[in-house]
Amino acid sequence: MIVSMSERATTEEIAGVVRRIEGLNCRAHVKRWESRTVIGVLGAPGAGREMEELSRSPGVEAVAPLTQPFPLAGREMNPARTVVEVGGVRFGGEEVVVIAGPCSVESRRQLFETARAVKAAGASMLRGGAYKPRTSPYDFQGLGLEALALLREAGRETGLPVVTEVLATEDVEAVAEHADMLQVGARNMQNFALLRALARTPRPVLLKRGPSATIREWLLAAEYLLAGGNPHVVLCERGIKTFETETRNTLDLAAVARARELSHLPVIVDPSHGTGRRSLVPAASRAAVAVGADGLIIEVHPDPERALSDGPQSLTLDGFAELMWSLSEPPRRVAAPRPAATLEELCELP
Amino acid sequence: MIVSMSERATTEEIAGVVRRIEGLNCRAHVKRWESRTVIGVLGAPGAGREMEELSRSPGVEAVAPLTQPFPLAGREMNPARTVVEVGGVRFGGEEVVVIAGPCSVESRRQLFETARAVKAAGASMLRGGAYKPRTSPYDFQGLGLEALALLREAGRETGLPVVTEVLATEDVEAVAEHADMLQVGARNMQNFALLRALARTPRPVLLKRGPSATIREWLLAAEYLLAGGNPHVVLCERGIKTFETETRNTLDLAAVARARELSHLPVIVDPSHGTGRRSLVPAASRAAVAVGADGLIIEVHPDPERALSDGPQSLTLDGFAELMWSLSEPPRRVAAPRPAATLEELCELP
Amino acid sequence: MIVSMSERATTEEIAGVVRRIEGLNCRAHVKRWESRTVIGVLGAPGAGREMEELSRSPGVEAVAPLTQPFPLAGREMNPARTVVEVGGVRFGGEEVVVIAGPCSVESRRQLFETARAVKAAGASMLRGGAYKPRTSPYDFQGLGLEALALLREAGRETGLPVVTEVLATEDVEAVAEHADMLQVGARNMQNFALLRALARTPRPVLLKRGPSATIREWLLAAEYLLAGGNPHVVLCERGIKTFETETRNTLDLAAVARARELSHLPVIVDPSHGTGRRSLVPAASRAAVAVGADGLIIEVHPDPERALSDGPQSLTLDGFAELMWSLSEPPRRVAAPRPAATLEELCELP
Amino acid sequence: MIVSMSERATTEEIAGVVRRIEGLNCRAHVKRWESRTVIGVLGAPGAGREMEELSRSPGVEAVAPLTQPFPLAGREMNPARTVVEVGGVRFGGEEVVVIAGPCSVESRRQLFETARAVKAAGASMLRGGAYKPRTSPYDFQGLGLEALALLREAGRETGLPVVTEVLATEDVEAVAEHADMLQVGARNMQNFALLRALARTPRPVLLKRGPSATIREWLLAAEYLLAGGNPHVVLCERGIKTFETETRNTLDLAAVARARELSHLPVIVDPSHGTGRRSLVPAASRAAVAVGADGLIIEVHPDPERALSDGPQSLTLDGFAELMWSLSEPPRRVAAPRPAATLEELCELP
Repeated sequence: MIVSMSERATTEEIAGVVRRIEGLNCRAHVKRWESRTVIGVLGAPGAGREMEELSRSPGVEAVAPLTQPFPLAGREMNPARTVVEVGGVRFGGEEVVVIAGPCSVESRRQLFETARAVKAAGASMLRGGAYKPRTSPYDFQGLGLEALALLREAGRETGLPVVTEVLATEDVEAVAEHADMLQVGARNMQNFALLRALARTPRPVLLKRGPSATIREWLLAAEYLLAGGNPHVVLCERGIKTFETETRNTLDLAAVARARELSHLPVIVDPSHGTGRRSLVPAASRAAVAVGADGLIIEVHPDPERALSDGPQSLTLDGFAELMWSLSEPPRRVAAPRPAATLEELCELP
Repeated sequence: MIVSMSERATTEEIAGVVRRIEGLNCRAHVKRWESRTVIGVLGAPGAGREMEELSRSPGVEAVAPLTQPFPLAGREMNPARTVVEVGGVRFGGEEVVVIAGPCSVESRRQLFETARAVKAAGASMLRGGAYKPRTSPYDFQGLGLEALALLREAGRETGLPVVTEVLATEDVEAVAEHADMLQVGARNMQNFALLRALARTPRPVLLKRGPSATIREWLLAAEYLLAGGNPHVVLCERGIKTFETETRNTLDLAAVARARELSHLPVIVDPSHGTGRRSLVPAASRAAVAVGADGLIIEVHPDPERALSDGPQSLTLDGFAELMWSLSEPPRRVAAPRPAATLEELCELP
Repeated sequence: MIVSMSERATTEEIAGVVRRIEGLNCRAHVKRWESRTVIGVLGAPGAGREMEELSRSPGVEAVAPLTQPFPLAGREMNPARTVVEVGGVRFGGEEVVVIAGPCSVESRRQLFETARAVKAAGASMLRGGAYKPRTSPYDFQGLGLEALALLREAGRETGLPVVTEVLATEDVEAVAEHADMLQVGARNMQNFALLRALARTPRPVLLKRGPSATIREWLLAAEYLLAGGNPHVVLCERGIKTFETETRNTLDLAAVARARELSHLPVIVDPSHGTGRRSLVPAASRAAVAVGADGLIIEVHPDPERALSDGPQSLTLDGFAELMWSLSEPPRRVAAPRPAATLEELCELP
Repeated sequence: MIVSMSERATTEEIAGVVRRIEGLNCRAHVKRWESRTVIGVLGAPGAGREMEELSRSPGVEAVAPLTQPFPLAGREMNPARTVVEVGGVRFGGEEVVVIAGPCSVESRRQLFETARAVKAAGASMLRGGAYKPRTSPYDFQGLGLEALALLREAGRETGLPVVTEVLATEDVEAVAEHADMLQVGARNMQNFALLRALARTPRPVLLKRGPSATIREWLLAAEYLLAGGNPHVVLCERGIKTFETETRNTLDLAAVARARELSHLPVIVDPSHGTGRRSLVPAASRAAVAVGADGLIIEVHPDPERALSDGPQSLTLDGFAELMWSLSEPPRRVAAPRPAATLEELCELP
């Protein structure tokens, strides 16, 4: 439910409506736009009678139902696009943000070499895994705290803000100390305990879409972060699970356009996990920009053949530089139609 | 298996190899590139002994296994991209081909109004359904022959070649008489009787990917057409079935890039069925061009609210004109990284 | 829309309602139950006014909307289960029908050996492919007419009615001459030209669910057959396409129970394609019977290792005999709960 | 890699092999069967040379590679089925275990009424949600600690051991104190932090398959628990996400049979989430037993229409009693084949 206050509503009247909403066991979410105030009612307000009473409160102009189940992530209460800032980098503004770096931090040398190269090629942020969610317990699980320290150092040296994944609520504090942005991995998109913990940090959160999450479930996961108090959320499409095995996942680029219709939050794309093949990353990246993505997050490794994780989908340093260059190329030309039918041809017609 | 003949191989020697292949109950597919001849062995050649004997035939330079199961659709024997020409329009060349028109031909007026408008907006070909595959037997099934005649007329007037779907082997002849290109719908991608019939027409075929077809199955369906004698095949990605219900299908744009890696055939995209929502068609179209598609096929209707089929995903005439205009826009700019760390910051580092 | 006539409605009144329905450009489907007549309105009747007029026609008791989109396949007009008879075998009756035989007819010897063995083991019908839909044009495509003749012969000798797949409308007549039941393969479930041709044969049809067909789409495909004039339709669940690769398809047994709720038609299960693994066929067969399937269709081969198609999922002759034996075993016992808490334990409670 | 020690190998020799394995940075998992010892090598042992040296160690009879990626969950090292005991209830034994109870604990009255009824009907264990993972932050999230206390009390009174879901690592201790078995929900199947925490409790764990998890990923999640030190793991199939919307999920019963082939762990089935429809739960339950499931977990509510969660899939108390009764019914009878062909018919044959 959204309550629109009249332009002349007083602070007292606004406070009165808020109290009334809280009296219904709901939460009031007050939003000001220019000279207007709109109050969102979060939770399940009871019968129509309460709604009617609310609409008769002093200063209220209109009461309308919320049709989206995610009032804070949705556009009904927030028609303008949100910009999320991370260490000077702006997601959701006019420009496309490129995040790049290795899947896992494997060593100082590997990380710094990559960080410097992606910075030189034009990346705006650095990625790197310290805690790795691995399907098998016997696979490399990340260097943990050591990797966090290296990431902070590499970020400082290159001037690139750092994003890294956090797997466990007990690591949130340490990761938030070292990184500029915290990533929720696809497999944790509905780890509600983790979402609640991240809602309480001041750090922006990069929320990956789960491999079997609908767009609606994804936005409801974002709603957990927003309702919990963290407004700095960037969404990331990284491919969903389908029957197709030629690519690692099926990158759902229309979902990016749809999520941006339904939500005011920035949406970026991970073409590395989305395709799982180095050779497809550049084309998928250009398509992501064309579909309206606010950014890209790309895996890069100085020697992908020897990477401890995700080698087949990591670009080389040179490959990444080429990709960056290609992102500004004009689109392929559209064929001009052949000349209209000749007079003779037209005369054949009835 | 591919047999590479030496540059000096005589016509006799080539014929000898072909006879030997046919003696193994296989088909020989002879391909000449510049001064060289390559012979593909289609079918399952027996044991290693035959292969060895083949490699010792006069004029043979080398024999190598085919690793792709679709030798004619694949790139091993055909590294160069194929251009398919339809009434002067070239698929797979340097430019992107745009096909547009109504889902179904509903009336002379509706068709001609649409055809003129999409021509004026820059489309190169006209689409329109005469025989409609409908999930329910009670839904509008298309105007049939009447629609075919209207399509031919509208194509002639506007100078746009026409593509339309054929549902039944018994209709192939009539459709081939009226249309410039025959479409195999997604639900018929593995209708092998239809593929065999289409392999015998001289008309180019537009082969849609089935809603649950892997890329491999799609290319094998193309192989039916090619092996049956029709080399003029254009592939069309139109979305696959997944758990996501926010869009009608999940448009698999990475599959376009992958299909173009695996095959020399042109690949176009149908963003109308791929998304099922008018509002998403422009973004999906731009993404399709960016991912490397050789063309687009787009549903357009003068009054989508009253369309007999697919209204929600049809663009208006104006909407199509806007889309055409937007296809040439330069991509969104990539954010430049912020200036490197200051000296002071760097001095903090160990 | 369903029109219920009053018990005393005259033939004249019934005919009057039918004419009125046809005047609305709809088809009337008259169904008598005991002393009552119900008339289904197929097609899209116009506005509420027509419906109101219809309800005031002489002899009409009530007019209700049809909520299912498949009036003939659905249960609204046909609450009782339908029994489809094929050469004395009854699908949809009290007993489970088992169809067995090879994937493809490969030779007289292979077919007769299998037919005799499955008969001896208790199968009620014989299956065998004459025309094979194969993903690759280079795979074995079936023996065609020769196989049809062999099937008829083997059916006569063993007394087992025969079911075989028909791929093309032009083959319907020949297949209907040789076989007792015609199968629509999964990939042809929405080949509407084929469905229309099969609607005109007097033979019962086995309609497989498409690998990406929803239950609703499956019942609408059956509606094509029923609306076209063939009431003898048996549905067959054979697995759908999902991300799981450990099994060839994902056998959707709950869909069998759901289809039987929504439709009066018999539903059988194909555990061979549903799992793709010989070792899983027996357990899946027992589960199919337990979920309510009216029958099973199982691939059996005297020497699966050398089968020209589907070897890995074919049972051996002995394996099939064991399976038949196991279908009558009582279910695994349910654990009895441990004795209730002792008095002492209860006394601890507040 | 599996090292088989000779029957006469001494403790010293076994210890030597273990040290050698640990020297390769792997973990040794020692397993004794009767008079034999087998040592699994967990982790990635290096090159072939080390394996050769190992095979020449004193007391070693043979060294073989492990082909399954989940040595502890797989059957290569553990051919016999494992029985997991929970408060006297045995999963994986000869009998089928039925767990029943409400989706969420809503009140003392609702829980006790349900617990007594399912006990009376023959259930062996009680389920009930205290912490509920909900897609929306505005939905009922469970009564938490209060529900845990109620569950313990209801379990004691009825003598039914209790299973409940744990969502967060910080809750593991409290839940382990109150419940007899801890459940990992489908959305947390790859929450590796939670799996690691549960690996350290002495309580058995019920591990639900994720909605997009392959069987292999599911068994690797179990491997996290086993490798972390908790051998008491029961797997639970609860449906996967597919394009079908007629059922809430697609219950993958063949996966139960396949998981039991690949693993020695007990596997149970959740037909409530698997189908999402009360009317389908009984048929799906019987099918689960028939496919080989070691148990069932079923949602039951005294008044499903008013349930705070999952009402549409909850059985009533009576419905559950009926289901229990039906689980022992013999399977539907298989049709006997019609009598063999008559002499006349046979004489027609060549």
